[in-house]
Amino acid sequence: MHHIWHNGQYFPVNDFKTSIYDLGLLRAYGLFDYFRTYGGKPFQWDWYWERYENSAKKLGIANIIKKAEAKAVVDQLIELQGGADCAIRFLLTGGYTLDSVSAQQPNLFICSEDLHLTSPNEYEQGIKLISYAYLRDMYDIKSTDYKHFMVLMPQIKSEGASDVLFHHNGLVSEMSRSNVFIVKNGILITPNDGILRGITRRTVMALVKDIYAVEERPVSLEEFLNADEAFTTSTTKGVLAIRQVDEHLIGNGKVGEHTLKIAELFWEFTKKINA
Amino acid sequence: MHHIWHNGQYFPVNDFKTSIYDLGLLRAYGLFDYFRTYGGKPFQWDWYWERYENSAKKLGIANIIKKAEAKAVVDQLIELQGGADCAIRFLLTGGYTLDSVSAQQPNLFICSEDLHLTSPNEYEQGIKLISYAYLRDMYDIKSTDYKHFMVLMPQIKSEGASDVLFHHNGLVSEMSRSNVFIVKNGILITPNDGILRGITRRTVMALVKDIYAVEERPVSLEEFLNADEAFTTSTTKGVLAIRQVDEHLIGNGKVGEHTLKIAELFWEFTKKINA
Repeated sequence: MHHIWHNGQYFPVNDFKTSIYDLGLLRAYGLFDYFRTYGGKPFQWDWYWERYENSAKKLGIANIIKKAEAKAVVDQLIELQGGADCAIRFLLTGGYTLDSVSAQQPNLFICSEDLHLTSPNEYEQGIKLISYAYLRDMYDIKSTDYKHFMVLMPQIKSEGASDVLFHHNGLVSEMSRSNVFIVKNGILITPNDGILRGITRRTVMALVKDIYAVEERPVSLEEFLNADEAFTTSTTKGVLAIRQVDEHLIGNGKVGEHTLKIAELFWEFTKKINA
Repeated sequence: MHHIWHNGQYFPVNDFKTSIYDLGLLRAYGLFDYFRTYGGKPFQWDWYWERYENSAKKLGIANIIKKAEAKAVVDQLIELQGGADCAIRFLLTGGYTLDSVSAQQPNLFICSEDLHLTSPNEYEQGIKLISYAYLRDMYDIKSTDYKHFMVLMPQIKSEGASDVLFHHNGLVSEMSRSNVFIVKNGILITPNDGILRGITRRTVMALVKDIYAVEERPVSLEEFLNADEAFTTSTTKGVLAIRQVDEHLIGNGKVGEHTLKIAELFWEFTKKINA
C-alpha cells in the first residue's frame, strides 16, 4: 500500500490529510521532484536529489531533510508498498500559514505512487503534440506551476494529441513534463535553454555520447518541424517518439531508426543499472 | 470561530484537513477570491462574485456553486464566527486526482478568516516598495500563483519595504496583491493592462469620478517615480499611500493631499454602504 511520509511519520495514503492553510495550496509556493524505481530501486537517485535541492534553493524554501535520511524514507516507502516498481514524489511547500503569506517552516511530503506508464500503442506509433507559445515561468525549477498545461488539457484531448510542445520567440523549449530531442542528418539536437533539465534527458545524453554527436543549442520551431525524427524523454515516458506536431508530420510520421536505437539503449540501461 | 465550508458541510477551521492529491497543490491549478465585511456584511459582493466566476471560466475550472447558494454560505460563515468583521476566502481547485493530472470534479473551499489589517503607522507615513521586473502570469485571473512574491519576501523585509512594485518592458503593472494609482497635476492615473482588476480599485474609480479626472492607461516606471503622489488599493489595505520605491521618494515622501482625500472618501463609503 502506498504511504506518505510527513514529519517523521508514515501514513497510508488514503488516511493522510493536511490543512488547506499551506502556502503550497494558497500561494502555489511549492516544488516537487518525482522519480521511479527500476528493479525495485530508485533510478538515478543522486541526480534527482541534486535537482530537488536546487529547486528548493532557487525557490527560497529550506530543504528540511538530509540526503541520507531522505534515502531511508524512500527505501521504506518502496518496501511498504510491496517492493514492486513505483514512483516516488517529494513535495516541498512554503508551509502552514496563519496570515496567508508567511510561515514558520516548510512542509515536506514524500510518498510512493503507482506508475502511470505510456501505452504500448504510443511507443509503437509515436505521439502527437499541439504547439503552444509559452515559456514556463521559472523554467529551471521544478515548481508545481502547471496551470498552462492544465488549461490546455481539453484542447490536447480534442485534437487527439498526447501533450503540448512549448515554444517562445520562435524557439522550442520543452513539453509539459518532458524534454525534447530532434534528429537531423544523424545528429542529436536538444534545446539548451528555457527548460527544466530532465534526468532522463541527462541519462540519454550520457548513454549516447560515444555513438552520436549531440548539440545542445537553441532549436527553432521550424527546425523541429523539419527534423528527420523527434522524441521526448521523461521519468515515466523514458524515450518516446513524437510523430506529429499539430498538422505537421515529423519525418515520415513513423518512429525513426535513431529513436528506436536510443530507446533501446535507454531501456537496456534501466534493466542493468540495478540488476 | 472560523469555519470552512466544503461539499455542503461546515467544519471548524482547525478540524478540517484535505488530501494532498489535489491539483491545486500538486499542479498549482487553483484560483481564489477574497473579500471582507464592513458592518458585518460582505463588501461589494456582486463584483467579487463576478471576478470569481471570471477566474474560474478563464482557468477552465467549473464553478460548482451558484451565486445564491454561495451567498448563503458566506452569511452562515460570518454568523458562525460571531458576526464581527472578517475576511472570506473562496478557494477553487482542479480537484482530487489519482494520476496527478486529471480530476473528476473541482474542489471548492469557502472559509472565514481574521482580517490582517495595515498598521496605523503605515497609513500615516505611507509604505516603501521595492521594484521588480515581472509580469504576473495570467494576470487577469486571480490564480493562486504568487511564487515570485514569495521568493521576494526576504528581500522586501531586508530593505525595510512593505511590498513589491512589478514592472515589465518599462511599464508599471501592480503590486503583489494590490493595484496602484499615481496623482500628477491633480489627475489620477492607473495602469490599464497587466493587472488583476481589483474591486477596491473599481470602487475608488467609481467614488472619485465626479471629483477627479481619471486616466486608465500605460504608466511607465519613470512616470511613477516622478509622480506627485502614489497610492495602492486592495481589499485589506483600502487606500494606502506609497511614499517610496527603492531609493526614490514619491513627491515629498509624505502622504499626499489627494491620497488623503480619496482615502477619506473610501472609508466613508465603507461605513455607509452597509449602515
